Amino acid sequence: MDMRKLVGRNFARLRAAAGLTQEQVADRADISQQYISGLERGQRNPSVETLYKVAQALGVSHVDLVNPDDESGGR
Amino acid sequence: MDMRKLVGRNFARLRAAAGLTQEQVADRADISQQYISGLERGQRNPSVETLYKVAQALGVSHVDLVNPDDESGGR
Repeated sequence: MDMRKLVGRNFARLRAAAGLTQEQVADRADISQQYISGLERGQRNPSVETLYKVAQALGVSHVDLVNPDDESGGR
Repeated sequence: MDMRKLVGRNFARLRAAAGLTQEQVADRADISQQYISGLERGQRNPSVETLYKVAQALGVSHVDLVNPDDESGGR
């Protein structure tokens, strides 16, 4: 399973649902907007601590960012 | 939430349930036994790709390694 792409898809979906811009998430998480944009494009390999900070910024659980989706089809 | 400690607790529990030694998990995941032992002690900040490799070695989902437990009490 491509974890970078999975996190990117989950992040994009959750960010849209929260009605937040990448910049707003970056500010809340105290992470660079460049990193956040790469995360959404599936190009980052975030640590669990970064996952937690991003999830808190979105107001979701960190688990939501790594849950397999239909596209990943795996466990 | 202390993500390092959460992953460590989940890893220890899942490894025991799988009846595997740290060395066996290290071999399967192609990760150093030293890293695995630090992971179990809650001293590592693994990336999502490392989480996935470790989960595959344990025969579980990567989600199981980051699920909040009673002790974390958080989301």
